[in-house]
Parts: sequence; structure tokens; C-alpha cells
Amino acid sequence: MNRNLTEDRPTFVTHLECSLTGERYEADQLHGLSRAGRPLLVRYDLEALGRAVSRDTIAARETDLWRWRELLPVRRTTSIVSLGEIETPLVPIPRSGGGSVLVKDEGRLPTGSFKARGLVMAVAMARELGVTRIAMPTNGNAGAALAAYAARCGIETVILCPEETPEVNVREIAAQGARVWRVNGQIDECGAIVGRGAAEGRWFDFSTLKEPYRIEGKKTMGLELAAQLGWELPDAIFYPTGGGTGLIGMWKAFDEMERLGWIGAKRPRMYAVQASGCAPIVRAFEAGEEHAERWEDAATVAAGIRVPKAVGDFLILRAVRESGGAALAVGDPAILKAVEDCAKKDGLLLCPEGGATLAAYKQAVRDNLVDEDERVVLFNCATGLKYPMPEAGQWLDKNAAIDLAAL
Amino acid sequence: MNRNLTEDRPTFVTHLECSLTGERYEADQLHGLSRAGRPLLVRYDLEALGRAVSRDTIAARETDLWRWRELLPVRRTTSIVSLGEIETPLVPIPRSGGGSVLVKDEGRLPTGSFKARGLVMAVAMARELGVTRIAMPTNGNAGAALAAYAARCGIETVILCPEETPEVNVREIAAQGARVWRVNGQIDECGAIVGRGAAEGRWFDFSTLKEPYRIEGKKTMGLELAAQLGWELPDAIFYPTGGGTGLIGMWKAFDEMERLGWIGAKRPRMYAVQASGCAPIVRAFEAGEEHAERWEDAATVAAGIRVPKAVGDFLILRAVRESGGAALAVGDPAILKAVEDCAKKDGLLLCPEGGATLAAYKQAVRDNLVDEDERVVLFNCATGLKYPMPEAGQWLDKNAAIDLAAL
Repeated sequence: MNRNLTEDRPTFVTHLECSLTGERYEADQLHGLSRAGRPLLVRYDLEALGRAVSRDTIAARETDLWRWRELLPVRRTTSIVSLGEIETPLVPIPRSGGGSVLVKDEGRLPTGSFKARGLVMAVAMARELGVTRIAMPTNGNAGAALAAYAARCGIETVILCPEETPEVNVREIAAQGARVWRVNGQIDECGAIVGRGAAEGRWFDFSTLKEPYRIEGKKTMGLELAAQLGWELPDAIFYPTGGGTGLIGMWKAFDEMERLGWIGAKRPRMYAVQASGCAPIVRAFEAGEEHAERWEDAATVAAGIRVPKAVGDFLILRAVRESGGAALAVGDPAILKAVEDCAKKDGLLLCPEGGATLAAYKQAVRDNLVDEDERVVLFNCATGLKYPMPEAGQWLDKNAAIDLAAL
Repeated sequence: MNRNLTEDRPTFVTHLECSLTGERYEADQLHGLSRAGRPLLVRYDLEALGRAVSRDTIAARETDLWRWRELLPVRRTTSIVSLGEIETPLVPIPRSGGGSVLVKDEGRLPTGSFKARGLVMAVAMARELGVTRIAMPTNGNAGAALAAYAARCGIETVILCPEETPEVNVREIAAQGARVWRVNGQIDECGAIVGRGAAEGRWFDFSTLKEPYRIEGKKTMGLELAAQLGWELPDAIFYPTGGGTGLIGMWKAFDEMERLGWIGAKRPRMYAVQASGCAPIVRAFEAGEEHAERWEDAATVAAGIRVPKAVGDFLILRAVRESGGAALAVGDPAILKAVEDCAKKDGLLLCPEGGATLAAYKQAVRDNLVDEDERVVLFNCATGLKYPMPEAGQWLDKNAAIDLAAL
């Protein structure tokens, strides 16, 4: 059996700090945002960590997310709530993407999306710190992951979804034992309701980046990429960006790995991909702003990136700029075309947000932001099976004369 | 990158043989059923294989399906068509199943089902042997896997589905580039049409067990189980049984591993699980028959096991009996209840066929076939996300006064 889930291992968290002001916060206590209203980041004693663990230690372990235990915040083995967080595969898409494009297929994780990475960590920490009731606003997949992990350890969950949340998500959230509501608004408006309840002490607020541990879970995308690519990061990463936790998390992972001497100074150019119908980060990037204003009347087929206002906006923009990347918007028709293309030509069914990264990549090649020979990783953040597909299947009558040549 | 997909490795196939008569057939040629109308089994030079590869060799490799290359029929590395066939996790379900039950979650494979194992192998061999057009009858998931792998290497596919095939399957088959038809009949009636076309030379027939290589792919379920459980097989396996390729394949894998000295003589009791509305194997098992008659008016919510007549019936029955197991039928209400239970209590959304194995396990415990302390593995053959879930999500008006205590 998987020893990552059963063996006790040393932990190295020293404290947390405000991502804006650097103000220090104690570890092993329940935290939301910092006093400055910004996300908290977990800090580790990387020197001690480097003495305890090497790349070889990691390589010798089972490959799931918990192989990175020493780089994660969970103190007690018994806090771990696992549904099998496998290392997701890198799948080439030579026909629809080109010869140097790999898709990191995050749809293979529990509940079918990369949200499992963040939520498995946040739920373990909530359990470790004694939380018994959690609420969260979600465009769907995060709520599904929260519901599943919380169900597994008996934490009660209240989940608020914008009205345009994919039907499958609302249903799976309920199936996995959560109380789920549909709200006539966007995700930040759902978040406001969650915030009011949290202020009244009714539940703990699990909104994106409003608790410090989801980012640590999402960080494992960066750790895995390095391990899978022989500790050599790709030239560019295209990441579908709503709240941006994963992009921020990977950037943090790269920094930690460099300090550990596990990778060099080379960084991928980070491309934050948004939909034209909801592109606050792209607008702020192009205007040279440090923060992004709320995007009004947000609308896109890619629900996961329909986030009008991100609390970690400045962290996303900082990572994108430091990396020499960009924030890119693609329209819904290009998104749907990319999904269709990849399925038809490479047999890989992307989610719309994953389709957005492929569309943005093609656009970036056309605009000479990326060279076709560069090693590129696209993030397919959920299984395409969750999303509506075109009707298909003509009828054939077994009792009639069948023209086999026409099949 | 994954060296299982790039390194050349020795192969050990010596020949194929008829599963009924033992008649010998040449390797490296295109084969359907044997002259006796029965499935062909692939045979290896296990002595040479054992000299070339050990359990340690396997353990040192990436953990995906292709780590077992020497035990598989594909000769040329370039024949491999991969979408990332990861080793699927074993997930405990302590609340809904009990403390000694593990679910092998096959929904994590490409196209969301265990059918990927068989089809990735069959397509690689079809490619190796020069096939350019394939047809297949399918209750859904096999067709989706075939479509995806065939799309990836430019093989044309024609897929025939019974009218009650889940909608999502018909759509994903088409999305992945196949020609898909709905037929007013059961899977064996679709198979008859495919057979006629094959006889006319219009395509190669990929029906369950009618080509010899899907079983070799499915065999990897048994190989993985052994490796994951420290080369000690579980006490019992509950397997959702339609065509039965996986059960037959695992049984073959156990035999090959014992001959290699990788496992001992201990075998799990194999429980073939069917739905009460389509239980030909159960009926034959109970009547002491060697073959199973066609089940008329087949009907169950678990489409994957709605197989009225299996060409490998005698192989399934033989393995079940040799193992000291049984064939068990469960009703649709018990199946749906098991799916609901596992999602609500353990956060794991099973497919109906996976639910059937949980329902059958509970029944077997009640009937004293299985002791609660025994190590049991249930096969969840596809992601539960493919199947309809109950409606959920009450409306909440953001503009009204919200009673937070009621959420």
C-alpha cells in the first residue's frame, strides 16, 4: 500500500506571511486572509528540509501528491483524507497542438478536476485545526472536490453556485453529501454571502485564497512537472486562470525548488489564459496595472474561468510579468473549436478551460510569442466528460436492409 | 519523460491458442476467433521472460500500464498509441463498504473507463498488423476508448450502440472522431451487424474477445493489483461482468505471475457481478452449466453489464469456479443505493457497474460468502461522472434577505 499515506514524516512549516505586506502569522492556527485583506502564504524551513529530503528521496516514493509531504503543511499523517491523488500524466497532442506540446491531464484526479489538489490539502488542514463546518462559493469543480473530501471525514459543507454553474457540478456536489444552493449572481456575489456567514461564525470560509492551504495543494502541479520532466521546467506554461491559485502555487513551487537546489534558475514563461467574456487579468496586464478591476457582465462557456474579481490578482500579474509571459484572452468559438480539434485529432477530450489553453497557445504561436519548437505544457484542468457535447448517433434499424457500405 | 513509451524492450510472445481446443495459431498475424469459434489467448515464453525481467525491474519503472511491456503482445515501441494509461489507485471506502474494502478506481484511465486498457492494446496491435478500419458493437465505454485511440493514429472506426447506450457515450464516441450508429437492439445484435461487415471485408471486427489482444490489456488489472498489494493478492475480487474480458484477463495474469515466481499459489475468490435484469452467467453458474444461454429482454441501469450473451462465457465460469468464488446478481435498486451511499459517505462517485460490485459485496457479507475482515477489491470500471445524477440545488435570491442559519 501507499506509504505516503501511512508513514509519519517530518514537517518544516515555520510560519505564514501576508503576500502583500510580509507580515508574519503563526503556523498551526486557523487563518483566513491577512489583516491587509490579502492571501497568506505558507513558509518552510527550506534549509532543514533540504537536509532531510532530496530529489532521490522523492523519486523512490509512490508518485501521488503525498510524495511531497515535507513540502506540504499537513503535520499529522492521520489528518490526510485521500481519494487517490495520482500524479497526472503528460499527454502529447501532436495533431491538434504540435510536436512540442504536452497536456497535463488534471481530469484524472478525484472528482475529475485539479481542484482536488487544493481541496485535499485545505480539508486535511481544516481537519487538523478542528474545523467542523465549511462554506464555499464555486463555479462547480472546487465545490465538487470540497464536498467529496469533506464527506469522507464528516465535515459539513454548504456550497453556493452561480446560476450558470454546469449542471453536472451542482448534482455531484449534492451526491457527495453537501448542501448546495444556486444563486442568481456571479462567484464573487456567492462569496459575499459566504463571507457574511463566516463573520457570524456559522462556518469557515473556503473561498479561493481566503484560506492559506489550497495554494499549497495546487503547488504540487509545479512540483510534479519538474519531476516528470527530469527537473527541467518547460519553456512555457498555459494556465486557465480564474482565481489563479494554481498559477501562483506553481510559481511558489518553482521558487522553493530552486532554493532547495532541485532546479536551476530557468523559469517557464507563464501564460494566464482567460476568456474574452471575462478577462480582468488580461485587461490589467495590458494596462500595466498591479491589480485587476472587477469584470462586469462576465460570460463564457468556460465556467471555471468566469471569475470577475480575483483576490490574488496582484500575485497572478506579478508571476506572469516576472516570468516574461503574458495574460491572453480567447473567445468562446476558439475555445469550442480547440476542444473539438483535440478530441477529433488526438482522442483527448478537454474541458472548455483546457480548450482555452490550446486556443491561446495557437494564438500565441501566430503572434510569435511562442516558437513552435519550444516545450510547452497546457493545463487541462478537468475531464471533458463533465461538459455538454454535441448530439450524435444516427439510427439504424436492425430489421431493415442495412447498407453496410454506408456505415 | 516516460521511458516505458520510448525504450525498445524485448518481447516474448510465442503463439496464440484456442481457449477451448488449445489449437495453436501463429503470432504476428491478424486473427479473430479460433476455428472453433472461441477466443484466442496469447502465449509467452515465460522462462525467457523470467530471465529478462524481475519484479524489481518492474518496480523501478514508471507505474503506467506500459511498465508491463514484456508481458504484453506489442512488438514495436512505435506501435504504442498512448493517452496516459496510469496505474489506477486503490481507494478505501470505510464508511460505505467497511474497513477492508478497496475500490480500484478505473475511472481515472483515458476516456474515463477500464475499457482503455483493452483498447489501447488492441489498437496498438491493429496498427502493428496493418489494420486501417475497425468496427465494434458497444454499450458505450468500449466504443469511446476505441474511438479515442483510433483517432490518435488515424484508424477509421465504425461503432454500433444499442438504443439504451448512455447518451454521454454516444456523444463522446462521435466527438472523438468515430462514425457512430444507434441500433434498436442489444449489443449482440449490434455485433451481428459488425460481423456481417467483417465477413464482407469492410472492417476488422473488434467485438469483445473476438480479437485476441483486448484481454492482454485488461490483464494489467491483475498485474497492477499484485504490484500494488506487495505481490500478495486480495482474498476476494468483485468484478462487474458483461463480456468478462477483465475477469478472464486477471485470471490469466495471476497464472502467468505464478509461473514467473512473482506470486504464490494463493488466488482471490472471483465474484462475477451481474444485474438481476441481465444475469446469464449467474444463471449458468447456479445451474452448474459450462456455457451460458442468451438472456432475453435484458434490462438494467448498469449498461456496461447489459450483455445477454458472452462469447467467453465458459472462461468466466471456469475462472469463477476454480477460484472458489461465485456469480452474483443484484437488482437496480441495490445498485443505485450503493452508488448513493458510497458518494455520500466516502466521497467516491461510482459508476452503476461499480455500484453493483459494492451491492454484491454487501450481499455476500450478509450471505456469509465473504468475511468482513477479508481483504476485498471492488472494481469501479468507469467514472461516475458519466452517468445521470439526481437533480439538486435549491435557488437562493442574492437580492432577498437570506436566512444564513437555514443554509
